[in-house]
Amino acid sequence: MTASAFGHWMRGELEHVEEALSQWVPADAPAGLGLAMRYGVLDGGKRLRPLLVRAACEAVDGHQEAALRAAVAVELIHAYSLVHDDMPCMDNDVLRRGKPTVHVRYGEAGAMLAGDAMQALAFEVLTPEPGAAGDEAGVPAALQARLCGLLARAAGHAGMAGGQAIDLASTGVALDEASLRDMHRRKTGALLQASVLMGAATGLCSPLAWAALSDFGTALGLAFQVVDDILDVTQHSDKLGKTAGKDLNANKPTYVTVLGLTEARHQAAGLHQQALDALTRSGLADASHLRLLADRVVDRES
Amino acid sequence: MTASAFGHWMRGELEHVEEALSQWVPADAPAGLGLAMRYGVLDGGKRLRPLLVRAACEAVDGHQEAALRAAVAVELIHAYSLVHDDMPCMDNDVLRRGKPTVHVRYGEAGAMLAGDAMQALAFEVLTPEPGAAGDEAGVPAALQARLCGLLARAAGHAGMAGGQAIDLASTGVALDEASLRDMHRRKTGALLQASVLMGAATGLCSPLAWAALSDFGTALGLAFQVVDDILDVTQHSDKLGKTAGKDLNANKPTYVTVLGLTEARHQAAGLHQQALDALTRSGLADASHLRLLADRVVDRES
Repeated sequence: MTASAFGHWMRGELEHVEEALSQWVPADAPAGLGLAMRYGVLDGGKRLRPLLVRAACEAVDGHQEAALRAAVAVELIHAYSLVHDDMPCMDNDVLRRGKPTVHVRYGEAGAMLAGDAMQALAFEVLTPEPGAAGDEAGVPAALQARLCGLLARAAGHAGMAGGQAIDLASTGVALDEASLRDMHRRKTGALLQASVLMGAATGLCSPLAWAALSDFGTALGLAFQVVDDILDVTQHSDKLGKTAGKDLNANKPTYVTVLGLTEARHQAAGLHQQALDALTRSGLADASHLRLLADRVVDRES
Repeated sequence: MTASAFGHWMRGELEHVEEALSQWVPADAPAGLGLAMRYGVLDGGKRLRPLLVRAACEAVDGHQEAALRAAVAVELIHAYSLVHDDMPCMDNDVLRRGKPTVHVRYGEAGAMLAGDAMQALAFEVLTPEPGAAGDEAGVPAALQARLCGLLARAAGHAGMAGGQAIDLASTGVALDEASLRDMHRRKTGALLQASVLMGAATGLCSPLAWAALSDFGTALGLAFQVVDDILDVTQHSDKLGKTAGKDLNANKPTYVTVLGLTEARHQAAGLHQQALDALTRSGLADASHLRLLADRVVDRES
């Protein structure tokens, strides 16, 4: 696969995902709620999670419509977590993807409700009413249930929300590397891993390939966070589209503060290799897009 | 059915539901998150929604384990909405079920995360991993998906969250009766109706019975809110277990402010009758517990 073929694939997939997000996130929800939801999720995200779902679906030759719904659902969960995370009672951030955050634009109550409704919408998208518009391809009910389960567990107390609770409690605390890893495995890793597994669930996947993709998702999730922590200290806000140095300023432990910049870079490279090894182990014939996405996660500059 | 037989049934059901809630809402989630979740949902709720699920399941001779999971899930959604609704950026209430609200006890960020994790947990409970502990009775995957869809739609932008957005926007606004009804149909009604329908989905239910139960849920949901508004002005805080007169003080439109107390009581009685008529129309052989729950909704004093 050439770089330009990958670019072409990615542009096509992103177009699909953006179109589906725009179609399924309602503008007409009452009292401005829909506008706040759309503001929180449309325009500007890298859509890494949707791309992982779609690439994993390809790798198992899975159900396309199911993967599109899963891609939208996982992005909705990610986006809602950012909306809530930016609120004054959490990180109190006013800039996200280069724009004022949702609570700055729609008020705190508006942002909280938008996030709440985005989480619900994720599960609505995964469970289209039988015969509803947009469900022509008919995602099998058993697959709908499986996708709901994978997403809910990744989003909930044992996953993302649990990781955020640890994050909240660890400001000013000297975490060791294992605790930091545990926090990020939940906070960021769980949803990235779930993206891969939701894609894999749309097709037939041997237990061996499933376990390998699970390992791929874990390594990728940690690599993502290590790189995030590196970029937080090496890039400017305008490049990141969010406030640079914010973890450092908030006195939060990061891979850079715990390990130092050199060792953090070394870890990112190691996790990258672990992810690629897991893909090889999966034995899947065409995992090239997953591999190239892993490369991008580590090599990105924002 | 005698009153004491109903009381016996209710105590048994409540015991089941409380036990399941206590089992499935984890105490060991990281960094106090589980404690905040348990604080927000255990001890003190009337559990009307779980009782509706269970009674509707009985009426269609449905899948018991599925109905127990649905009962817990719908209560988790209800409880999370209260946790978020009580926060300073929303209703800013410090008293709920006679206890300090979750944000008073666990901080605003803790309350927001607990609510977020409770919503996710609702969908986790509905989609047990194949072979997981507690899934001995094996809820069919198609039913899991159906329950997730009903719950997500009732909780989301077109249902509860949408109703709360209207509520938020209507402080100090002179709503007419139709707009007030639309708000409450979403804010409270959607989840009460979903409780009935989730119970009905666990068994075989003709389209006619389904439509009748849907009407039952709608009428019951509105009756519930009208009675709530009446109690808000006629009862003291200690009896309600929450701050009495708060809608009035917050300058929010209620059935009492829009219709007056006499007409509000008249409407409550009319909606009660509509609910009972719908049950009769359903043609279900044993809807007695649903009927008695409707009676309690209207006749309650708190």
